[in-house]
Amino acid sequence: MKILLIGGVGTLGTAVGSALTEREHEVITVGRATGDLRFDISDPEQTAALYEQAGQVDAVVSTAGDVPYKPVVELSAEDYESAFRGKVRSQIELVRQGTRRVAERGSFTLITGVLSRDPIPTSSAASMANGAVEAFVLAAAKEIAPQRVNAVSPTVFTESLEKYGSFFPGIPPVDLAEVAQAYVRSVEGADTGRIYTLS
Amino acid sequence: MKILLIGGVGTLGTAVGSALTEREHEVITVGRATGDLRFDISDPEQTAALYEQAGQVDAVVSTAGDVPYKPVVELSAEDYESAFRGKVRSQIELVRQGTRRVAERGSFTLITGVLSRDPIPTSSAASMANGAVEAFVLAAAKEIAPQRVNAVSPTVFTESLEKYGSFFPGIPPVDLAEVAQAYVRSVEGADTGRIYTLS
Ligand SMILES: NC(=O)c1ccc[n+]([C@@H]2O[C@H](COP(=O)([O-])OP(=O)(O)OC[C@H]3O[C@@H](n4cnc5c(N)ncnc54)[C@H](OP(=O)(O)O)[C@@H]3O)[C@@H](O)[C@H]2O)c1
Ligand SMILES: NC(=O)c1ccc[n+]([C@@H]2O[C@H](COP(=O)([O-])OP(=O)(O)OC[C@H]3O[C@@H](n4cnc5c(N)ncnc54)[C@H](OP(=O)(O)O)[C@@H]3O)[C@@H](O)[C@H]2O)c1
Repeated sequence: MKILLIGGVGTLGTAVGSALTEREHEVITVGRATGDLRFDISDPEQTAALYEQAGQVDAVVSTAGDVPYKPVVELSAEDYESAFRGKVRSQIELVRQGTRRVAERGSFTLITGVLSRDPIPTSSAASMANGAVEAFVLAAAKEIAPQRVNAVSPTVFTESLEKYGSFFPGIPPVDLAEVAQAYVRSVEGADTGRIYTLS
Repeated sequence: MKILLIGGVGTLGTAVGSALTEREHEVITVGRATGDLRFDISDPEQTAALYEQAGQVDAVVSTAGDVPYKPVVELSAEDYESAFRGKVRSQIELVRQGTRRVAERGSFTLITGVLSRDPIPTSSAASMANGAVEAFVLAAAKEIAPQRVNAVSPTVFTESLEKYGSFFPGIPPVDLAEVAQAYVRSVEGADTGRIYTLS
């Protein structure tokens, strides 16, 4: 398959890219400042331009999502808006605009994370964003069939423990290789409206 | 208790207002064009002005949330943004700004709805909004203690069947009186981080 991989040079994206390449898919990486194609998916017009340039693809896989982490009382209205644009609307637009661009039985796989169900202090914007994307996936799946849409919702990566481990005390991490397999399953399988929880 | 009731003149708000008044609370209703105080909570600055005018309260209860209903492929990026501002950011701001305004052990009760877990066609923006608010509630509860925050997540109201019943085929409705009791429970009880599902 020809697969568009958003965030393909990031921590998760690199692992997902390797797993998809191993399965002999053609992977095109996308980032704001890195990757084969350079677009910012938090801007709906750039998402349109991305699809214009990429042409028809079989699957869209997202490993990109930026949200601010701060205590509730320190987050501003703009911070929540930035979480919405950086992780929610960005991924919704991949699906919404992508229905016209992706193969008839193509798929979308989005990234969320454990914080929707198991928040930590400072995660309220991240939790909000993950919960929004997961509920969107359930809803959109029913409408876009036979195209499919799923989300991957992992806990902290083993490979990110050095950076984020102190925020997840006593919480078992998940290996990136295992998270990447959830993407393979979503892309090659027949699931839709599914949240693959890895925690 | 002195309670701020957002949307107090609406279908749900009227039922919640009656239940709270019956429990001998002092209820102040808020709406854009109806109620004791007139503010649009989708605008963070008006939320600030609302709290300024209301003074110290013991509980904030929200029954207000506007979202567009359309098929995924007909919704625009602006529609999702409007759902975010009209139901998600609006209620997050009630909590975020309210932590400085509500009593030390005061509470917030927000409205979501069944569509986060059981979507229907045209509900993807509504589902997204409900999922966002529910995940925010789980996260915020851990941070704002001893203040409390819960959400009420009902299916279609018996009293709204005439208007919306055709969108919920074969799905049992819930009576407004029962939904109102979930608000009473949230306000007078000790729960926090709780989603009261009524479906
Ligand atoms: N790290 C963890 O332990 C963990 C655990 C669970 C969930 N997650 C979630 O997984 C996702 C990725 O995490 P990560 O640790 O792999 O992050 P990362 O290393 O920072 O990688 C993110 C990638 O996405 C791209 N990107 C970000 N925003 C973009 C945008 N608006 N448009 C286009 N590309 C964009 C970045 O490239 P450019 O900078 O070039 O744009 C980068 O390649 C996040 O949403 C995170 O919440 C992470
Ligand atoms: N109806 C159902 O069957 C059902 C089922 C499950 C969940 N819900 C949810 O319950 C909520 C209320 O539904 P409803 O049927 O009671 O709606 P409704 O009758 O339209 O009442 C909404 C009330 O909220 C106020 N309001 C709306 N937006 C506001 C804003 N930005 N700022 C201040 N006040 C605002 C309105 O007053 P003004 O016009 O004066 O602003 C009105 O009083 C919605 O979020 C809906 O999704 C409804």
